[in-house]
Amino acid sequence: MPDFFSIQKKDSHSRARAGTIHTAHGDLQTPCLMTVGTKATVKTLTPFDLKKIGVGCVLANTYHLHLSPGEDLIAKLGGLHAFMQWDGPMFTDSGGFQVFSMGHGTVADEIKGRERRHAKKRVLDITEEGVRFHSYLNGDERFLSPESSIQIQHKLGADMIAAFDECTPSHVDKHYTRQSMERTHRWLDRCIAEHRTLKSDQALFGIIQGGVYPDLRDISLDFVQRSGTPGICIGGSLGKNKTEMFDVISHAMDRLSSEKPVHLLGIGDLDDLILGVEQGIDTFDCVTPTRNARHGLLFCSNSPDHRLRITNAEFREDTAPIDPDCDCEVCQNFTRAYVHYLFRAGEYLAIRLATHHNVHFIQRFVRQMRESIVEEKFQMFKEQWLG
Amino acid sequence: MPDFFSIQKKDSHSRARAGTIHTAHGDLQTPCLMTVGTKATVKTLTPFDLKKIGVGCVLANTYHLHLSPGEDLIAKLGGLHAFMQWDGPMFTDSGGFQVFSMGHGTVADEIKGRERRHAKKRVLDITEEGVRFHSYLNGDERFLSPESSIQIQHKLGADMIAAFDECTPSHVDKHYTRQSMERTHRWLDRCIAEHRTLKSDQALFGIIQGGVYPDLRDISLDFVQRSGTPGICIGGSLGKNKTEMFDVISHAMDRLSSEKPVHLLGIGDLDDLILGVEQGIDTFDCVTPTRNARHGLLFCSNSPDHRLRITNAEFREDTAPIDPDCDCEVCQNFTRAYVHYLFRAGEYLAIRLATHHNVHFIQRFVRQMRESIVEEKFQMFKEQWLG
Repeated sequence: MPDFFSIQKKDSHSRARAGTIHTAHGDLQTPCLMTVGTKATVKTLTPFDLKKIGVGCVLANTYHLHLSPGEDLIAKLGGLHAFMQWDGPMFTDSGGFQVFSMGHGTVADEIKGRERRHAKKRVLDITEEGVRFHSYLNGDERFLSPESSIQIQHKLGADMIAAFDECTPSHVDKHYTRQSMERTHRWLDRCIAEHRTLKSDQALFGIIQGGVYPDLRDISLDFVQRSGTPGICIGGSLGKNKTEMFDVISHAMDRLSSEKPVHLLGIGDLDDLILGVEQGIDTFDCVTPTRNARHGLLFCSNSPDHRLRITNAEFREDTAPIDPDCDCEVCQNFTRAYVHYLFRAGEYLAIRLATHHNVHFIQRFVRQMRESIVEEKFQMFKEQWLG
Repeated sequence: MPDFFSIQKKDSHSRARAGTIHTAHGDLQTPCLMTVGTKATVKTLTPFDLKKIGVGCVLANTYHLHLSPGEDLIAKLGGLHAFMQWDGPMFTDSGGFQVFSMGHGTVADEIKGRERRHAKKRVLDITEEGVRFHSYLNGDERFLSPESSIQIQHKLGADMIAAFDECTPSHVDKHYTRQSMERTHRWLDRCIAEHRTLKSDQALFGIIQGGVYPDLRDISLDFVQRSGTPGICIGGSLGKNKTEMFDVISHAMDRLSSEKPVHLLGIGDLDDLILGVEQGIDTFDCVTPTRNARHGLLFCSNSPDHRLRITNAEFREDTAPIDPDCDCEVCQNFTRAYVHYLFRAGEYLAIRLATHHNVHFIQRFVRQMRESIVEEKFQMFKEQWLG
C-alpha cells in the first residue's frame, strides 16, 4: 500500500503542487475538484457519464443520506460505491455543515439562536455530546454526534471521510468562535477514537476552524496537525468576501506542513480554484457547477466571467456550441439555440446537457491546471484565466 | 430510390408482416413503435441514447413546435433533424389532435361545444377553412388549416408527415362524425395539393376517420386509399374499449390494400402492439412508455401486466435489476433499490433511468416481434406475451 498522498511536482513560484491521493478505489490526481453528488447521484448524470467526463472523485452528503435512505440500507446494499455504481474515489462530509445550515436562512441564524423563536426551528440543541435537530424531510427529531457521524460514514463506505464539526459563520463573535472551535477539537478527538474502534481504513480528514481570527486559526491548525489525520480540511467561516477568504487560507497554508492533502470545503469558482491551488490547496468541492447548470448559467471560455446565461434571448438563434473551445459531448453536438430552447420549454434534457457541460468544463479546467503545474507553467495558466 | 415501403415477410396465419420503410434518413424496420419526442426531445434522453437503444423513428409534434420555438426558427437552424441532432427517420403528426385536445378535458368537450361556456376555451372556431384556437402557452389566437399544417411540417422537415384532420371522439353522434369526416376528406385533398405545391419529398400519410361506424370507416378508407398518399393512418375514435378498438381496426384492415404502411395513431400498449401487428398494422406511436417511466411505472417481463411500480415499498431493498431479463444499460448496472430511492428522493436521474429502461424494453420487444414474424413464430410470440 503506497502512502495516502504523494507529490509529483511543486511549482517553483508558489505553493501549487501536483499530487496523487491513493485510495482503494483508484488514484485521485490533485489538484482536484470533487464533483458533488449530495444524495448519491450527481444530478441528471450517470456514473458512466462521470467516467467519460473524467471526474476523479464524487462527494456525497452524510446528513442527507442518513435521513434518506439511511446508512443501514446503503450498507446492506454494499455501501455507497455499489449503491450508486460509482467505482472511483469518494468523499463524504460529516453532516455537520448541513445540520447547522439546512432549512433556514444562514448558519448564523442557528448559532445565534435567532431561529429558536420560529416555529420551524431545526437545530434544537448543541451540547458537548452533539447536536439535536429536526429532519428537514419530515420533522423527526434526530441526533448527530462525532461518534454517530463517523459510524454513519463508516457504513456509507467512502474512501475519505470528514470529522464532525460545528461550522462557524463569519458574523459570530470571537468568544463564540473560540468556544465552538474548542468543542470541535474535542469532537475531533472523539471522531479519531471512534474511527479506531471501528478499525476503518477510510482516510479521516480533520477540520480546521477558528473563523477569521488568525490566532484561533493557528490554535486550530496546530491541533488538527497534531491529531495526525491523513488529510486536513479548511472549514468554517472564511470571511465575508474573497479577500478575507484568501487571507484566512494563506495564513493557514503558511503554517501547514506540506505532507498531507489539504481540502478547502465548499469552495470552487474558477478564480478560487486557481488562487486556492496557488496557496497549496489540493482538493475542493463545490455545488456551483451543477447548481448553476440547473439555472442555465453555463461555463464559456471566452465570455465575461467565463460564463453565459443560456436562457438569454440572444442565444435563440445561435448555432455555436455553448463553449466553442469545449470538447464535451454537448458542445460537440448541440447548438446554443437548442439548449436555449430546451430551457425555455422546461425540458429535462436542458438540465442534463447543461450539467454535463459544466462538469466537463470544470474538470478539464482542473486537469489543465494540474498539467500546467507539472510543466512549470502554472503562472501562465493563472494569467491566461485571471488576466 | 427504392419504393417507400417494402415487405420482407408475411405471417401465414395472420396479417402480421415484417417490412421496411425507406427514408432519406435511413431504413425503418417495421413493425415499429415510434418513440415520442413531442417537443423535439425524448424526455431526458439524448439522440445518442436513442441510437444505442435501437430506436428506429422519432415522432415530434407539429402543434407544440409551431407554438415554440416555431417552424421558421427550426427551418433556419437546418430542420428538426439538425435542431435536435437526430439523424434517423422522423415523423410529425399534423397538429390536428393537439388543437382539439390540449388544455381541456376531452376532445368531446371541444367538439360538442361544452368548452365554449368556459373562460379558458381553446378552440374558437372549426370552419371549412381550418381551426382558430388559443395557444396553450400564452393564450395568443392562432389558426391552423390543412395548408398551414403542411407548410409547417415541410419546414420542420420530418421524413413522414400527417394530413390535417379533425379527430372525432367516440361519444359524438353519427351525424357529427359523418360531417367531420367529410370535412377531413376535403382537408386531405387540400393537404395533398399544398404538398404538391411545396414539391416536398416527405411521405404524406392520409388519415382514416369515421369513428366507430363501419359504413363511415368504409367511406373514409376508400377516400384515403384513392387519394394515393404513400402511407395511411388509422385515426379518430377507436371506440370506448379495446374490443371496440380492435373491431374498428380489423374492419379497416379487412378492406385496406396491403401495399402501403399503415400507422395506428396514439396506440402502443404491449397487447395493442401484438394485436395491432396481427391485424397488419406496421407502425405505432404512443407516449405511454415515456410517460409511465416518469411516474415510476416500469416494464418488467415477469411481473403482472409486464410492469412494476418502482416506488412501491417492496422495492426498497431489492437488489435485482428493474427487469432481470432486460439487457439495457440501466438493468445491467442499477438495482431496483437505487431506482426506488432516486424516485423517492425526487432526483432527476430517476426519470432518466426509468425512461431509458422503458424505451429500451419496448423497442426490444418490437424488434423481437419482428424477428418472430420473419422466423414464422409470430403466434408463439403472441402466446408467450398474452398467454
